[in-house]
This record gives sequence, structure tokens and C-alpha cells, in this order.
Amino acid sequence: MTQQTDTDILLTVSSLQRSYSKESLTPVQVIKTIIAKLKQRGDDGIWTYTLSEKTLIERAVALTNISASQRSQLPLWGIPFSVKDCIDVAGTPTSAACPAFAYDATQTNPAVQKLLDAGAILIGKTNLDQFATGLVGIRTGYTTPHNAFSKDYIPGGSSSGAALSVAHGLVSFAIGTDTGGSGRVPAGLNNIVGLKPTRGLLSTRHTVEACKTLDCLSIFSLTATDAQAVLEIAQGYDPDNPFSRPASVPPASLSAYRPQQAFRFGVPRSNQREFFGNGDVETCYDKATKTLKDLGGTCIEIDYEPFLQANSLLFNGPWVAERYASVGAFVEANPNSVYPTTREIILKAKDKTASQAFEGIYAMETLKRKLQPLWQEIDCLVVPTTGTVYRIEEIEKEPLRLNSNLGYYTNFVNLLDLSAIAIPNGFQSNGIPTGITFIAPPYSEDYLIGLGSAFHHACKNQLGATTFNLEITSS
Amino acid sequence: MTQQTDTDILLTVSSLQRSYSKESLTPVQVIKTIIAKLKQRGDDGIWTYTLSEKTLIERAVALTNISASQRSQLPLWGIPFSVKDCIDVAGTPTSAACPAFAYDATQTNPAVQKLLDAGAILIGKTNLDQFATGLVGIRTGYTTPHNAFSKDYIPGGSSSGAALSVAHGLVSFAIGTDTGGSGRVPAGLNNIVGLKPTRGLLSTRHTVEACKTLDCLSIFSLTATDAQAVLEIAQGYDPDNPFSRPASVPPASLSAYRPQQAFRFGVPRSNQREFFGNGDVETCYDKATKTLKDLGGTCIEIDYEPFLQANSLLFNGPWVAERYASVGAFVEANPNSVYPTTREIILKAKDKTASQAFEGIYAMETLKRKLQPLWQEIDCLVVPTTGTVYRIEEIEKEPLRLNSNLGYYTNFVNLLDLSAIAIPNGFQSNGIPTGITFIAPPYSEDYLIGLGSAFHHACKNQLGATTFNLEITSS
Repeated sequence: MTQQTDTDILLTVSSLQRSYSKESLTPVQVIKTIIAKLKQRGDDGIWTYTLSEKTLIERAVALTNISASQRSQLPLWGIPFSVKDCIDVAGTPTSAACPAFAYDATQTNPAVQKLLDAGAILIGKTNLDQFATGLVGIRTGYTTPHNAFSKDYIPGGSSSGAALSVAHGLVSFAIGTDTGGSGRVPAGLNNIVGLKPTRGLLSTRHTVEACKTLDCLSIFSLTATDAQAVLEIAQGYDPDNPFSRPASVPPASLSAYRPQQAFRFGVPRSNQREFFGNGDVETCYDKATKTLKDLGGTCIEIDYEPFLQANSLLFNGPWVAERYASVGAFVEANPNSVYPTTREIILKAKDKTASQAFEGIYAMETLKRKLQPLWQEIDCLVVPTTGTVYRIEEIEKEPLRLNSNLGYYTNFVNLLDLSAIAIPNGFQSNGIPTGITFIAPPYSEDYLIGLGSAFHHACKNQLGATTFNLEITSS
Repeated sequence: MTQQTDTDILLTVSSLQRSYSKESLTPVQVIKTIIAKLKQRGDDGIWTYTLSEKTLIERAVALTNISASQRSQLPLWGIPFSVKDCIDVAGTPTSAACPAFAYDATQTNPAVQKLLDAGAILIGKTNLDQFATGLVGIRTGYTTPHNAFSKDYIPGGSSSGAALSVAHGLVSFAIGTDTGGSGRVPAGLNNIVGLKPTRGLLSTRHTVEACKTLDCLSIFSLTATDAQAVLEIAQGYDPDNPFSRPASVPPASLSAYRPQQAFRFGVPRSNQREFFGNGDVETCYDKATKTLKDLGGTCIEIDYEPFLQANSLLFNGPWVAERYASVGAFVEANPNSVYPTTREIILKAKDKTASQAFEGIYAMETLKRKLQPLWQEIDCLVVPTTGTVYRIEEIEKEPLRLNSNLGYYTNFVNLLDLSAIAIPNGFQSNGIPTGITFIAPPYSEDYLIGLGSAFHHACKNQLGATTFNLEITSS
């Protein structure tokens, strides 16, 4: 792949930090390069809002002008990032991809604040599947974003703009959200890493909630180790957020991954794997399980049925009522300002009763208990990130069923209180990337990042849609 | 008080164990005495079902005939107890105090099974406020029970029969349930101890649920140390019960109570204390706070408003829909078989939406977080168990409001995930007992039992409605 040039800077956190350290690059240079790229790309559907050129340059200059000792206190000094536009950043508008809903945020989400406080540079707010309601990434009141590798294909969502901002090398990392797969599906479809940390590890205060009891902030990056660097800064207990949880310990076997360490990974039984007719994704997945065996993994076929039951609970059960609790009043008052599919989903929730809500909670807790013994048998579950990908025009014809297909391997994760990381897994013959996702009990981030990184390096993939590949990061 | 005679046996666990150990009593003698008392009392509204004389004697004889080494494995050998009739015991009917609802249980609740396996002798199933829906204890399809000290007054509920079976010396302990105060109100109104352990510590599998996410099994006994002995046997993680939780550690300061240990107890601000015009209960409560100071306690006035908000959430919020989820179908199909007030409450839940259910959960989590700093300022909260007591005829005239008054100091406890113990606190001038309740974070049972026991001994109360007093237990 092409080596670094003046106009094409590899934006991984680790690479930028090395360049800053060697003084071969400055934050101002990086920001100017990003501004040039943004101008060149025009309105590509990635952004709902970008900070002004003046503001960006001033921020970079201000960071440059601090003392060395101040700078040493800023672990993300000069690292550019984006924030999904359902997360508040004071001084910028929050739209949740619905222009009529937009408001000027006066508060900043605490996880984003930690990143800013660590010296990271916010480039802008990213487009999404409106109100974070779908996995296609194209239901938006702004310009429709498309896959980083093809104008015809969906980018995946709901954090479509977030993933694209990373895949195209416009930021080093992006903060997204994940309720039923929004932090993983667009990572898989755009050849980048998507970390969905344990629920509550990053504060969700000052966000437009999708499902308040399930929502997570998620991290998109070009490499798994970059996701770890961001996680370490962004996480932290927030006493003012009722769904924030203090950090805790993972199962003993999942405290850390060591290279070539033996591990046991679960895969759905072959008759429970679903590729929706996409042989390419199946081939990529089969190759991934082989790679994992080469890395020291023992492959164990597991019964995927309880996970499918959890999927069904999430999207057919009562949790959709949380979407109504969050934005229902706005949707009722402004029906024509809302994307039709999104409106239909949110208003449908009105018919659910409180009794059904509690019955859903009982079913969720029952499934969690049923699956507890499984996590003694396997260290992690490994699934395709999505079983297939769709063209934008296919989604427009059949929006609900195809959206639901995209969640076959993602929907259950937050409902069952698990942690997950999506890692690039090569390309289909149509040029669209595929991903695999590693899933484990809560608080297993370090393990998942370690194993995911080992897998990523074993595949030696291109980084996102950039001109760089993974090997450069270890140089 | 009267000393023990052949016809009046003190049934505390500790006293019986001493007598069994000295061979001054046998289980057969104890059971025969209980049978005689039951016969003498006739249908007093305490029981929905008692085991046959033959079955009881056979069980006592069987226990007597085992080897000494077998017996040493049975920590509750020969100890008589009762089970609230919303809890399944295989081979007995479960009615939840609704005769038309009754079914023959084929399974035994795991906590009850542990007690039976420890050698305890089940005497029968006790009456309750139908479907465990109220705190008055008199809404039942069986004979109306009354207070242990007056035919005119309510016994309190919903575990009315359970508390009365202990207060009248018909069993050593009783297993009840507690959702919004059912394990504490009848303890307070009948001069006995009521322990409401941490939610999930005793399995609630095989019960007729009131609010599945909140229900606890509770323990009634004459002394706090007896409650501890029962708790140690009955608790235990149940992997097949989704709401069972493994034992965990309390806050460091609440690991155990030592006599004369300094402690900080919270009391509601004087303008937030509510006695509904009952000066006697107020006097008893004021005396109790003085006693607690004498025991080494520092009294701290706290803002009771968040607890009142939680009360309101429990009975005006969505949790009533759990009652509908549990028995709604039966109530719909058999409206005339259900106590009218109970029917009204359960059917009202149909109007609650799933969105309201989630909003209630958000409010609950927000209150929990709001109260976290309080538990750093105080070790426990001390409140009257009830602010007053009512005559049966008063309740019949105004069933809902007066029932709600009884929960002023109890409703919030399970919603906020706290543990509690109700301890006798002397008598009103009308001869009806009063109680105080100690409340602390989850897993604080040892501390609460220790402190509660110290308080109980400081008061030297009569034990329940028996002819014995507390001093005998320490002889």
C-alpha cells in the first residue's frame, strides 16, 4: 500500500502519536489536511455538522502552544475525532439526523468531555440512521451516506457517519452509539474496528436516547489498539447517570489476551448460520474461523437459538417503547418531519402495555440465566458482523425485513449484557468489506481487544478505505 | 411473665434447640402441643391449609427415629414453621387466599425446600391479603384474620397469617413474602420480628408472584437471632430463578454489628414523619430513637422526600402491571371470585403502557442514584414500621387510602433494593403493638439483625402474643 505523504496522513492514534513525538507532524498540519479532505469530499452524507475551519485551527494552535508538561498530561493530544449526532457537545447542534428535531446543545456528554479534556480535537458531528433506529444507516433527514467502498451499497448504521469518518481517514476515531448493533454493523461494512463496551462503562448522559436501559456509547477506529486507547480515556463511572456502572472485573479467564494463548470460541451450529444467500460472507467467515484456530483457538459449535430469541425480544418485544419514551412526543407532534420508516417503528410502540414490558424483562432475565453455563464452555462467541450487505435501492424497497436481517448477529448483545468488538474480515467479490464480531461477558474489553487485534494482524487488512494497511501501525 | 409449662411451650428456635439438646422436649411433644392449640383456636383466619394430624405426627416421629449423626446434619431439626399460601409446597394446595384460584402444588419453592431438608416441620399454609396485594391483611377469600391483640384491629398484611402464626406461638418461624411491606407491616402490628432480606437472596421460584422484579421471601420470628438462623438455611443462589442473586458483601461498615458499637442512624425530618394522628405510635418511635442513642447511635435527620417519591412510584407507577402479568388472566376470567378491592387494583394495571413502564424504571434508577450519598452519611435508616393502625371496620369503609397509609415507611424498600428488619417497639394505649424498622443497603442482613436484636433486648418486650418475654431467650 501507499506510504505516508504530505497529503495522505495515516490517522491511527498510535501513528499520529509517534509522528507528534518525533515532531514530524503537528496538530495544525493534521487539521489542515483534514479540512482539505473535507472540502474535497463536499457533502458526502458523513456529517450533520462540522466545526468551522477557524475553530479547528484555533484548537490545534492552542494545543500546540501549551507547555510540554501540560501536553504530557493530555493522552489524546492533537488526535482528531468525530461524535455521532445523537450525543450532545456543548456549542454544537444535536439533530439525531432529524433537522426539525435539532437543538443547540448546552451540555457535553461526559465521555466526550473526557476525550476533549485529554486533548482530542473534535472535527464534527456525524450522520446516523434517524434517532438511531435502524441498522442500514441511510434513514436520515440529511444527505444519504453510502458505503465507503461503493455508492450503491448501504454504509450500515445506525452510526453510519461515525464509521465512514474513520474509514475515510477523516478522523482517528469516532464516538458512536450501540443499542442493537449500531456500533458494529457499520464497522463491519466499512472495514474498520467497532468496539461496543459493556453497558454503562461510558456515560450515556446528554444523549438522545434510543433505548435508555440498553444504549451504549461505542468506539470506531482503524485498529483495535486504538479503540483501547480511546476506551481508557472515555470510560468512567458517572454518578449522575442512572445507567452508568462502575468498572468491574471480567471472568478470570478473560482478564487479558496473550499472543498464542489457547482459547475456546463458540460459533453457531452450521444450520443456525445465516448468510441470506451471500456465499462470499460465508467464505470469509469460514476463513476467519480457520485463522482463529491457527491463533490457538478451539472452535466449539454452540446452540444459537437463545441468542435468536433475544434478538426477537429486542425488536418485537417491549424495548421499542423506550424509543417512544425518548422521542415519541416529538414524533407525535411532527409526524411529517420524521423519516417514514422511523416514524412507523416509534409509533408502533404505543400499543405495548406495561404488563408486556415486564414480561419482556422476565424473558430477558430468563435468557441471561439460560446462557450462563455457555460462558463457562467458551471464552467468546465469534459471529459474522452481518450475514450479508444490501444495495441502497434494495433497502428502499423492503426497509423493515432487510434491516432486521442485518441484526441477526448483533441485536442480542446489549439485551444480554455482553461486550463485543467488530473486526475487519476481508472483502466480498463485490468489493464490500465483511467483518467478524467477538462477543464475551461484560467487562471483557481488554480480552476482546487483545484477541481482536491478534486476528486483525493475522489478516493484514487494508485500514478502512484508506491507502494504508495494518502493517504500518506496527512499524 | 409465665414460665414454660407442659401446655405452653416457648417456640423460639433457640429455646427449642436447647430443650431438644437437653432432651427435655421431643418434636412429637412439640407437634402435639401445636395440634392441641390449633384445635383449641379453631378457624381463626390464620390458616388456609394445615397438614393433617397424622402427617404432622409421622414427620415428628420420623425425625425422632433418625441417627444422632443424621440429626447433627439437620440444623432446624424439629423446628415447626408455616409458609404463606402464595408459595408452593408440593403436596399442598396454593390458593393465594383466593379459593377459586387454588391449585395442588407439585413443586416446592427452593427456600422452603432447604428448610424442610434442614429438618424443619411444616405445620401449614397461612392466610394473606389476596394475591399479596395489600398491607391490611384482611382481603381474603378465607376467614378474616384479626390482630393478635384485638378482634377489632387489622393484623396487617399481606403476610397476615404468617405473622399471626408466629405471634400466637403456633410455629417457631414463618416464611412470608414482601413486595411493598408485606413482611414488615404484620410483624410490627403483632409484636414480632420481620426480616426482609435483600431481593434475590432467597429464591422466589414456585411462588404466585406479586411483582416478580421486586418480590422477596421474608422471615417472621419471635427474635432477630431466630430470623438469622432461618436466613442462613433458606438463602442460596438459584440458577433457575432469573431474579435470584448470589450472596454479596455489604458496605464495609455494615459487615457485622458489635454490641455498643457506635453507629449513625437516619430518621425522617420531624415534618416528614407521619403518624396519621396517632400520638401513641409517635411516642413509641421517639422513645425508640432515645433507646438507640443509649445503644451508641448518633441520630441524623435526613430528607425523606426521595423515599416518598419511591413509594409513589411503587403504587401509582407501572409496577402494578406486574400483578396483572402474574394473575391478570385469572382475574379477567373469574372477576367474581376475586376480592373486589384486589380486583380493582389488578385490572387498573391494564391501562399502563410499556413506555410508562420504562419511564418508571428510569425514575427508580434515578432515585437509587440520588440516594447513594445518603448511605455514606448513615449506616441505617430507622422508621416506624407503620405510622398507625386501623380497625377492621375503618378499612372496610376506606380500603385504598388507609392501605396506602400503612406503606408510608415500607413501600420504597424493595424498589430501592434495600434490606430491612422490623422489630417490636412496645404497645399503644389501645393495646396494639408498634414496631420500628431498620433499613440499610443490600446484603446488610447481619448488621441489621445484630442491631435489631440489641434494640429488642434493650426494650425487653413480650414475645409476640405469647406468655413469654424476650429475657427468657438469653437464659
